[in-house]
Amino acid sequence: MQNYSFFMPTRVIHGERELVKQAGLLKQLGNRCLLVTGKTSARVSGALDDAVEALKSQGIEYELFDQVENNPSLENVGAGGKAARKFRPDFILGIGGGSPLDASKAVAVLAVNNIEPEELYRNKFDNPPLPIVAVPTTAGTGSEVTPYSVLTHNELETKKSFSVPELFPRIAFLDWRYTEKLPLSITRDTALDALSHLVEGYLSRKAIGTSDFLAERGMKLWAKCLKGLREGALTPEDRDLLLVASTLGGMVIAHTGTTLVHALGYPLTYYHGLPHGRANGLLLGEYLRFSAQYVPERVNDVLAWLGLKDIGEFSRIMGELAGPMVGLTGEEVKQYAAKAAATKNAAQSQGDVTETVLQRILECS
Amino acid sequence: MQNYSFFMPTRVIHGERELVKQAGLLKQLGNRCLLVTGKTSARVSGALDDAVEALKSQGIEYELFDQVENNPSLENVGAGGKAARKFRPDFILGIGGGSPLDASKAVAVLAVNNIEPEELYRNKFDNPPLPIVAVPTTAGTGSEVTPYSVLTHNELETKKSFSVPELFPRIAFLDWRYTEKLPLSITRDTALDALSHLVEGYLSRKAIGTSDFLAERGMKLWAKCLKGLREGALTPEDRDLLLVASTLGGMVIAHTGTTLVHALGYPLTYYHGLPHGRANGLLLGEYLRFSAQYVPERVNDVLAWLGLKDIGEFSRIMGELAGPMVGLTGEEVKQYAAKAAATKNAAQSQGDVTETVLQRILECS
Repeated sequence: MQNYSFFMPTRVIHGERELVKQAGLLKQLGNRCLLVTGKTSARVSGALDDAVEALKSQGIEYELFDQVENNPSLENVGAGGKAARKFRPDFILGIGGGSPLDASKAVAVLAVNNIEPEELYRNKFDNPPLPIVAVPTTAGTGSEVTPYSVLTHNELETKKSFSVPELFPRIAFLDWRYTEKLPLSITRDTALDALSHLVEGYLSRKAIGTSDFLAERGMKLWAKCLKGLREGALTPEDRDLLLVASTLGGMVIAHTGTTLVHALGYPLTYYHGLPHGRANGLLLGEYLRFSAQYVPERVNDVLAWLGLKDIGEFSRIMGELAGPMVGLTGEEVKQYAAKAAATKNAAQSQGDVTETVLQRILECS
Repeated sequence: MQNYSFFMPTRVIHGERELVKQAGLLKQLGNRCLLVTGKTSARVSGALDDAVEALKSQGIEYELFDQVENNPSLENVGAGGKAARKFRPDFILGIGGGSPLDASKAVAVLAVNNIEPEELYRNKFDNPPLPIVAVPTTAGTGSEVTPYSVLTHNELETKKSFSVPELFPRIAFLDWRYTEKLPLSITRDTALDALSHLVEGYLSRKAIGTSDFLAERGMKLWAKCLKGLREGALTPEDRDLLLVASTLGGMVIAHTGTTLVHALGYPLTYYHGLPHGRANGLLLGEYLRFSAQYVPERVNDVLAWLGLKDIGEFSRIMGELAGPMVGLTGEEVKQYAAKAAATKNAAQSQGDVTETVLQRILECS
C-alpha cells in the first residue's frame, strides 16, 4: 500500500501584495524582526520595500542583514548569526533566492544558540530556532517550504545541508511580482532547480503517494511555462505558475529529499561556479536515462506530464535552457563521482548508484 | 490568477500500527493524556488498545472519557470538559468517527477554559486549546485534518460548528485496520460524507488551486473504492484508499468550508436521525444538477474523476449507497430551507442560493 504520510506546517500565502495585506500575521511572531537578504535581489524585486512597509504598519522594529552571498558559506551565516545575537530579534524574515532563504534558517538557529556555524550540522540545538518568514524572489529553490538549509562547506569543498523540523518557515509569501525583474538566465536556472526537485522527488526511493501527487501537479504547472521559458518571454501568469510549481517542488523534497542529481550538482557549483539550478538541469537528462532502467513507468509519467515525447527531447530542452556543460577532466569526473557517491542524496536514488554510474552520468551530461 | 494558498499544519502519519510505532511523538506532547472516545468504535476497532499500548510504552499517564454520543451535544462535550479539568491532561487523544473527533476539539478547549459550552461559538478563548491527536475509525469525517468541530445545538435545533486554527490536530494517524470492522451501512454513510467534502469543496465559491488538486486526487481515489462500496465487499486496499480520500476531503474543506449540502443535511440529521454522511449523499445529486447551471465544467470534472457518465448515474449510485430519502412534509421542507438559507455554508455555494432553491433541492432529493 502506498504511503500518504504528510507534513507541511508552513502556511503558504499566494497572491499579489499579500505580504503587506497580511502584515498582521507578522505581528503574531513578535515585535523585533531581522531581515536577511542578499545584496541586490531583495531590493530590485520590490520585496524588501513591501516587507519594510508591512513591518512598519505593525510597529515592528527591524534591522537588515543584507550580506548573504551566493551559495552562502558557514563563515557568511556565522556573520549573520552574530548580527542576530546582537539585535535579538523575535523572528527572521528572509527574502531572496535559495541563498538568502537558506541563510535565514542558519541565522534563525544561530540567533539563539551561540555555537560555531560548523555545529549546525549536528542538527540538534539547545534552543529551538526563531520563527522564519520566507519571501522567495526566484521560482526555484522551494526553500520557503522545506526544513533544509544548504550551506557551502569550504573545508569539505562542497555544499552540505542541515535540517530540523522547526526550520520549516512559519509563513511563505508567494508573489510572482518579486520574480518579474530577474534576468532571463536566472529565471531559467532557477526554473531548472524547481524542475529538478519535482523530477528527483518523483524518482526518489523515498517517493510516497503524497509527494507523487504534489510532483504531478507541479510538473503539469511547470510544463505550462515551458514555452515562455524557451522563448525568453514569460507572462505574469507564467511567472505565477512557475512560482507555485517551485513551491510544490519544495513540498515534494520536504518529503523525499533529493537524489544523485543534487549530489553531482554540488561539486559543479563549488568548483566551476555553475549556478545550482543549471548544474541540475544539465544532469537531469542522463539521470532520466539511468532511472529508466529501474522505474521506466515513472520516467514515462515525467515525460507525459511535461508534454515531451522522449528523453532525447527532454535533454535537448535542458541544454537549450541551461546552455553548455562545463568541460571536466577525467580526474575531476572521478573526484566528483566519489564525493557524490558518499552522500545520502545518492542513496535516495532508485537503482544501483555506484561511483562508476555517477562517472558515466557526468561524462554523458 | 488562481490562488494556491495553503495551510495544513497537521502531521499526517499513514500506515499500519504507526500509532504504536511512533509513540515517541506522543511523548513530545506531554506526560498526561485524556482519551476521548465514544462507547464502542474505539474499542471494537482496536484503536483504543493501540493507543493504550502507545501511551504505556512512553510512560504517559492517561484517563478515558468514553461518553461521547453520536452527534455530540453541547451538554455532552461539557461533561468531557469537566472530566478534563479534573484530570488536567497535557494533550487530548481522540479516537473514533466524526463525533468523538469533533468532541475532542471541544474538550481540548474546555480543558483549559472554564466556560459554558455555549461559549465555544465565540471562537476566541483565553487559553489556547490543548494539543490534539486524532485517530479516525471511519473513512469519512476528515475531522483529523480540519480546525472544525461540529456540535449539536439543542436550543437552535441543529448542528453548528466552531473553529480556531489551533484546533487542527497536531498529529493524525491513518490506519485502515481501524475501519475494518465497521458495519457496511456505516462504511457507506461515512464514505458519502467524504465524497461530499470533496465535491462540495470543488464546487465551493471558496475553491482555490490548492483545494482543487486535493479534491481531484481525493475523488480519483474514492472512485477506486466505488465498486467495493456498491458490492459491499471492501478489500484492505479499498479501505486504505478510502481513508486517504476522506483525509484529502478534510484538507479540502479546511480550505473551502462546506456548502448548502451540509446546511440542508444538518436538519435531516437533527430532526429525522439520518446519519450525517447519508443525509449529504441523498442531497448531492440535486446539488450537482443545481451547480451545473453555474459551473458546468466543474460538475463535468466531478463526473469524469468519479468515472460516471452523467448526473443521472451519479444520483442512482447515491441512492444505492444511501438508501431511501426520508419523507418530508411541505412544512418541514420550508422550515429546513429557511434554516439552511441563513448559514455561511449556503453562502459559500456557487449560484443564487435562495430559500426557494433550497426547497426545490429538498423536494427533488
